[in-house]
Amino acid sequence: MIDLEMIGRRAKKAARALANLATEQKNAALHAIADGLLARQSEILAANAADVADAERAGTPPAIVDRMLLTEARLKAIADDCRKVAELPDPVGEIFDQRELPSGLRLYKRRVPIGVIGAIYEARPNVTVDIAALCLKAGNAVILRGGSDIARSVAATTTVIAGALEEAGLPVFAVQSITDPDRELVRQLLRLDRYVDMIIPRGGASLHRFCVENATVPVIVGGMGVSHIYVEPSADFARSVPVIVNAKVQRPGACNALDTLLVHRNAAPAFLPMVAAALAQHGVEMRCDLEALAILSDAPGHEAWNIKPAEPADFGREFLALIVAIKVVSDIDEALDHIAQYGGHSEAILTGDPASAARFTREVDATAVFVNASTRFNDGGQFGLGAEVAISTNRLHARGPMGLQELTTYTWIGEGDYLVRA
Amino acid sequence: MIDLEMIGRRAKKAARALANLATEQKNAALHAIADGLLARQSEILAANAADVADAERAGTPPAIVDRMLLTEARLKAIADDCRKVAELPDPVGEIFDQRELPSGLRLYKRRVPIGVIGAIYEARPNVTVDIAALCLKAGNAVILRGGSDIARSVAATTTVIAGALEEAGLPVFAVQSITDPDRELVRQLLRLDRYVDMIIPRGGASLHRFCVENATVPVIVGGMGVSHIYVEPSADFARSVPVIVNAKVQRPGACNALDTLLVHRNAAPAFLPMVAAALAQHGVEMRCDLEALAILSDAPGHEAWNIKPAEPADFGREFLALIVAIKVVSDIDEALDHIAQYGGHSEAILTGDPASAARFTREVDATAVFVNASTRFNDGGQFGLGAEVAISTNRLHARGPMGLQELTTYTWIGEGDYLVRA
Repeated sequence: MIDLEMIGRRAKKAARALANLATEQKNAALHAIADGLLARQSEILAANAADVADAERAGTPPAIVDRMLLTEARLKAIADDCRKVAELPDPVGEIFDQRELPSGLRLYKRRVPIGVIGAIYEARPNVTVDIAALCLKAGNAVILRGGSDIARSVAATTTVIAGALEEAGLPVFAVQSITDPDRELVRQLLRLDRYVDMIIPRGGASLHRFCVENATVPVIVGGMGVSHIYVEPSADFARSVPVIVNAKVQRPGACNALDTLLVHRNAAPAFLPMVAAALAQHGVEMRCDLEALAILSDAPGHEAWNIKPAEPADFGREFLALIVAIKVVSDIDEALDHIAQYGGHSEAILTGDPASAARFTREVDATAVFVNASTRFNDGGQFGLGAEVAISTNRLHARGPMGLQELTTYTWIGEGDYLVRA
Repeated sequence: MIDLEMIGRRAKKAARALANLATEQKNAALHAIADGLLARQSEILAANAADVADAERAGTPPAIVDRMLLTEARLKAIADDCRKVAELPDPVGEIFDQRELPSGLRLYKRRVPIGVIGAIYEARPNVTVDIAALCLKAGNAVILRGGSDIARSVAATTTVIAGALEEAGLPVFAVQSITDPDRELVRQLLRLDRYVDMIIPRGGASLHRFCVENATVPVIVGGMGVSHIYVEPSADFARSVPVIVNAKVQRPGACNALDTLLVHRNAAPAFLPMVAAALAQHGVEMRCDLEALAILSDAPGHEAWNIKPAEPADFGREFLALIVAIKVVSDIDEALDHIAQYGGHSEAILTGDPASAARFTREVDATAVFVNASTRFNDGGQFGLGAEVAISTNRLHARGPMGLQELTTYTWIGEGDYLVRA
């Protein structure tokens, strides 16, 4: 069995070296990794083909197999993403929060890497390079643990990365992977707080819960949550429809996709049939409370819509599919109460009333709140972060999309003239 | 036994209300608490006297008993601190990181409370009001769990706080305490992640470790660590001595007190006897490596100094007493290696060389790094934060002194003109 203690110690040592690298060195390593992925693609694709063949033999569903699959084109896209990370600004070394104190102390913060990041993910081989590239750029060492069903893909990719690191003069242990399939190793990694500073799980709710339950290392939870859009009578109805369609259908499996539509009672009779017609065109199933159902059941064209009564559990459910729950609310207070009870991921209001918009953004507690914009904007790329390692639903450290800056911490630095504390 | 589920639910509900309070309401509540502590001091002092009497009967060491003790003067000081928190700026609602994106999305962050804070502390009844006041000001609800030996003091204080909250129109469950002595309740609190967003332990290493081992709620670890001062030949020796004395003797029991003095070989012969004479005057025991011991054993006046050979374990030890370890190093690289191995709390360099200062601040990884200043400055008050709930040694969320801002998180807010994601 793998010696995690040794992996941790090596990562910690690599992290110290990485923290002091010049931006150019880190960028050179990222380009070397991209080059290596292309130059040695036959090794990686062969390893991946073996993983995929096993999965198919084991009867893995085609959607999962497709997520596992690497192709020449996909590997090229992964290498391109790696080069894009090289182009992003380096967060390390930034000086901020400067002040001079009455004692004479000149105080500021310097942005530094977090240290050693552990990433635990499921059957997505692209995550190996994605996470490694972002961690490296922010000066962190990383210990990767991919799903056991992609162990050969991860091992081949990490070998290429190690070669590229060596070529670029970086510590080879900056990126390590645990490819032994023993799940006990995940449990050990989660408790390796002597060496590991943060765990990023990438996968379903049960993986995240497993990490929270078993970790002594801080865990970034994310990737899931219920999202709402609340429509007011003052909204521009014609322009609201495409926003709701975008939020629901652009990528139904994403965590920022719309789950529940809340419509103000005074907007419902005119607006609900408009939005239902548009959602129906995209094959969306609508699970409606009694009031919404009554309106939609009387609307022209309703015969072609997939509308049905909602179960109570449909409110507060993350569908990850072309399904939306619809509820009529009597006012913004009811909408805010509903979102406080069930929401917290990506929440939006569609309104023409600045007072409602202000109240909604002030009172809704979520990773991201939108006014007259789709919940799908809750994303590192859309927020201009360049890329993201996760969309955190934690309340500590970072909330929402986590880019390079969120992979750093800071050191307080105080300068004086032989100052003593009074 | 207490129903922690109910306490958590009440705290969560209170937190939602607190998040939307105006600054004036929170300040009014803080003044009401201060007033209440003075108006009802006889209740609090009687409860505290009972705790103290029990502790004395049980043979608790006098230093601990003194820490438990509340007096009229101490209660007055606690009330004054509460009013000082009212004077601090309110972090909630601050808008920052504004940007306009190519998509047309106007994006910014709004500072919001973390939510519900759990505080677990030992025999210091003043922590009850300290933590409650800071949490309230930052809009957080708090669940307090003081040591079982001060249960009556905590209960009496929380009753007064609840009365003040009610009087000021705040939710009474904004501050709750668990006074049942069953330690199982601490374990349950640490796993109450459905309701509790952050745990602040205030106590010794074993309490912190217990929290990390048992919590599913994120824990802010802090309050301990090894601190170093490294002296270069270019330092002003005469002005360096008071800095080292200040770092060691001002409050030896503090986490930012000096533990190990590292002296450059070229500075050692002249500097070590100077600093030893000064430290000896304050009764400091010096545990020296062989090279430092040889220099000090030959120095004039050494007969009156408490110098002895260091054990290997003295390096990397937090003394919390009038003891310092002393080591001669051959250059800044050896100093940096030593600090990388053992340090990480409060680290200082005394030097006249800007290049050394720059390298030290860039390469030392610690909560705070000082140039020509005492390690004792690593403190919320000294850093101008007004007050602190802890000095975090975590690498996530907040590092070093945690004031009001560190008791908040943020929501991303995006505004558009019926924007859809492309």
